[in-house]
Amino acid sequence: MNIPRTSDPRVVIIGGGFGGIALAKKLAKQEVQVVLLDKHNYHTFQPLLYQVSTGGLEPDSIAYPIRKILSKYPNFYFRLAHVEAVDAEKEVLKTNIGELKYDYLVLATGSRTNFFGNKEIEANSMIMKTVPEALNLRSLILENFEQALLTDSLDERDALMNFVIVGAGPTGVELAGALAEIKKGILPKDYPDLDTRRAQINIVQSGDAVLKGMSAKASEKAEDFLENLGVNVWKNTRVVGYDGDLVTTTTDLSFRTATLIWAAGVKGETIDGLNGKDFLTFSDRVAVNEFNQVKGFENIFAIGDVACMVTKGLLHGHPMVAQVAIQQGAHLGDNLLRIFEKEPLTPFEYKDKGTMATIGRNKAVVDLPRFKFQGVFAWFVWMFVHLFFLIGFRNRMVVFINWVYNYVRFDREARLIIRPYKKPKAKVIPIESAKIGNKKSENI
Amino acid sequence: MNIPRTSDPRVVIIGGGFGGIALAKKLAKQEVQVVLLDKHNYHTFQPLLYQVSTGGLEPDSIAYPIRKILSKYPNFYFRLAHVEAVDAEKEVLKTNIGELKYDYLVLATGSRTNFFGNKEIEANSMIMKTVPEALNLRSLILENFEQALLTDSLDERDALMNFVIVGAGPTGVELAGALAEIKKGILPKDYPDLDTRRAQINIVQSGDAVLKGMSAKASEKAEDFLENLGVNVWKNTRVVGYDGDLVTTTTDLSFRTATLIWAAGVKGETIDGLNGKDFLTFSDRVAVNEFNQVKGFENIFAIGDVACMVTKGLLHGHPMVAQVAIQQGAHLGDNLLRIFEKEPLTPFEYKDKGTMATIGRNKAVVDLPRFKFQGVFAWFVWMFVHLFFLIGFRNRMVVFINWVYNYVRFDREARLIIRPYKKPKAKVIPIESAKIGNKKSENI
Repeated sequence: MNIPRTSDPRVVIIGGGFGGIALAKKLAKQEVQVVLLDKHNYHTFQPLLYQVSTGGLEPDSIAYPIRKILSKYPNFYFRLAHVEAVDAEKEVLKTNIGELKYDYLVLATGSRTNFFGNKEIEANSMIMKTVPEALNLRSLILENFEQALLTDSLDERDALMNFVIVGAGPTGVELAGALAEIKKGILPKDYPDLDTRRAQINIVQSGDAVLKGMSAKASEKAEDFLENLGVNVWKNTRVVGYDGDLVTTTTDLSFRTATLIWAAGVKGETIDGLNGKDFLTFSDRVAVNEFNQVKGFENIFAIGDVACMVTKGLLHGHPMVAQVAIQQGAHLGDNLLRIFEKEPLTPFEYKDKGTMATIGRNKAVVDLPRFKFQGVFAWFVWMFVHLFFLIGFRNRMVVFINWVYNYVRFDREARLIIRPYKKPKAKVIPIESAKIGNKKSENI
Repeated sequence: MNIPRTSDPRVVIIGGGFGGIALAKKLAKQEVQVVLLDKHNYHTFQPLLYQVSTGGLEPDSIAYPIRKILSKYPNFYFRLAHVEAVDAEKEVLKTNIGELKYDYLVLATGSRTNFFGNKEIEANSMIMKTVPEALNLRSLILENFEQALLTDSLDERDALMNFVIVGAGPTGVELAGALAEIKKGILPKDYPDLDTRRAQINIVQSGDAVLKGMSAKASEKAEDFLENLGVNVWKNTRVVGYDGDLVTTTTDLSFRTATLIWAAGVKGETIDGLNGKDFLTFSDRVAVNEFNQVKGFENIFAIGDVACMVTKGLLHGHPMVAQVAIQQGAHLGDNLLRIFEKEPLTPFEYKDKGTMATIGRNKAVVDLPRFKFQGVFAWFVWMFVHLFFLIGFRNRMVVFINWVYNYVRFDREARLIIRPYKKPKAKVIPIESAKIGNKKSENI
């Protein structure tokens, strides 16, 4: 990989997400060589991906070049690489661009979508963990409406205008709210020759509440907000199948839809060599001790979503959110410096700064450790916090301008099909009620 | 296509570029049904595509949803469609989404890259006529530098850092200037472990001047600007071959490069049924009379790049620029209204408002009908004019913010490989001097 060996210890970080970047920043000023590997050349601000999918923000304003974040630090190396395996015995990483020795290794690979083994759903549904995936969803949503214009079958048209979101965590709830606002504010203007009142947004949740990780008040209020926006909220219902057309569930409920968005779960993004049974715990996350050390190794660590700290009565580890990753990254940075200075390690303690989610304009819910509030003020707090954590002054300015514009104009202008998305199995079969469809379509 | 027939005449416009949009806006308030077809759902502001390629602007801020431009007009229909052929006898268009009858047909299809029959260059070079193409070029430029880090061969590394632009019209000149600024301001910071001083920007031109359509003063000054920025300007040299690695020319000059950008010519984007010998003239443009009527038809028109008005001593028609398209679109709008009111048509007269090109910060050339000037003031005029013609308040704001930021910080932050670009034939073979390469690389 053409990275010179120096007398400094070499720390290799896999992943430039919240955790990896926080760690790299902590170490970059010290006498340590930091090598960061990522399969993208940019850091993604995942909490705003849903706004990219729904045309509210440009993709480029929630992504930031990793080289730029750390360009001031002479001891920092970035390589665009897919890590294929870890050979922990030889202390070597195998990647698509060659091998790399490490002195200390940090897994900060994050998480990926968990389909819980359902291959059919995996093949036919949309996900939203990366910028390209968010852009695919944006294209598909817009393509659906263009296609809905062309059909005489009311069933097909309804399926094209029906959006089913599985999972009522923050991602699902925020996406549902954004789609509902598009239905209300944009579709009637953009598609005057389509009866867009028939568009449906459904959110399906296996548990008995939306935003389950938040307070009961936040959960109730979020559900109210969704229903006020016209979203159909289905609880205690587990989606079990989707063939590209029909969604089936554990109850009587089923949907015909061209778009299923799967936001029902994530699991650790593991790497060969550290993904055996001995290493993994709940949701394929790598078990770590209170110093983020991977079992059996003193020089291998895992932080953020991929790590599961099972000590101190935390049966399922910390929540898989940005704050944990950022705090673990910074803490591990301190601990590594302690190792270099032969000092004892300090255990990680999570400071819960709160949780929040936005459902629509003036509609958000915020749980802080001491205060819980919902509505307009919560919405402003949500925006302020997200702007604050976004990396880069230019990105903040551009996002801010877009938000002000979208707020004042009730608009989302990035509704562009830059790269059309082809569904692998994009068939929407009209069902037996096709007759009704044909009859009604004469009046349309 | 599910477009209702009304008693109003139906005008079908193919293409939502400058000409098609200008025409649609003129007609949309009148008693006429306007159907606009485009293969994208957005209008592209092509003059700024080179800034997307070079990371200065987000793609979404130079594109604008066509539906939104015309959403206020009830008699306007948009369809996302590829037009496959015109059956002029039956007055029917064939498209990928079905057939469409027209009363009046307007070709506003613009132009596409002209490789003058050279299939090898077509297969291996990059072009920049659409947003996806501009994004592919952005990805490739960034990928080249990532790859250059990995090789021990100096030849390969030089080829990866060598950019050859063919054609010194506005597109080529503006792109060359932007690449030179990236080399100077961004590469040394982003790639401290790469000797980016070895990066080369070459612009090759078959004629004896850059910006040939402009005044001699503008042409000379633009060449000075390019040379000051470190661009190698090659004149009187025609590129004849490129196999993905070696560029050959009509002179002794040759280059080893991983990136050839072809900006050497365009031709009319024609449509089956109206592209026979009888219809086409220079550069495959459709011959039209002074009313933009296509030969042999009273109800078929062509405007903008695809049209060539050969009357009044204009041997090669008007220049293929946005201003001509906009003026012809608006003029044809007036003429169509005259047709509906059975009044005589008026001939098109082009009002040349001037030409301009920017080479870099504080470096632009402007030829107005009465004044010609170059340098800082020209650069501000260039920016003002481009902001003015950009569609949409939000786009203008975002572009303005980016320009101010890039100017103050000497930066371009959209250097993101969102969708990696795979060259169809991405081989860079080290040549016989590989020995020298290996020797030198030891010192790097």
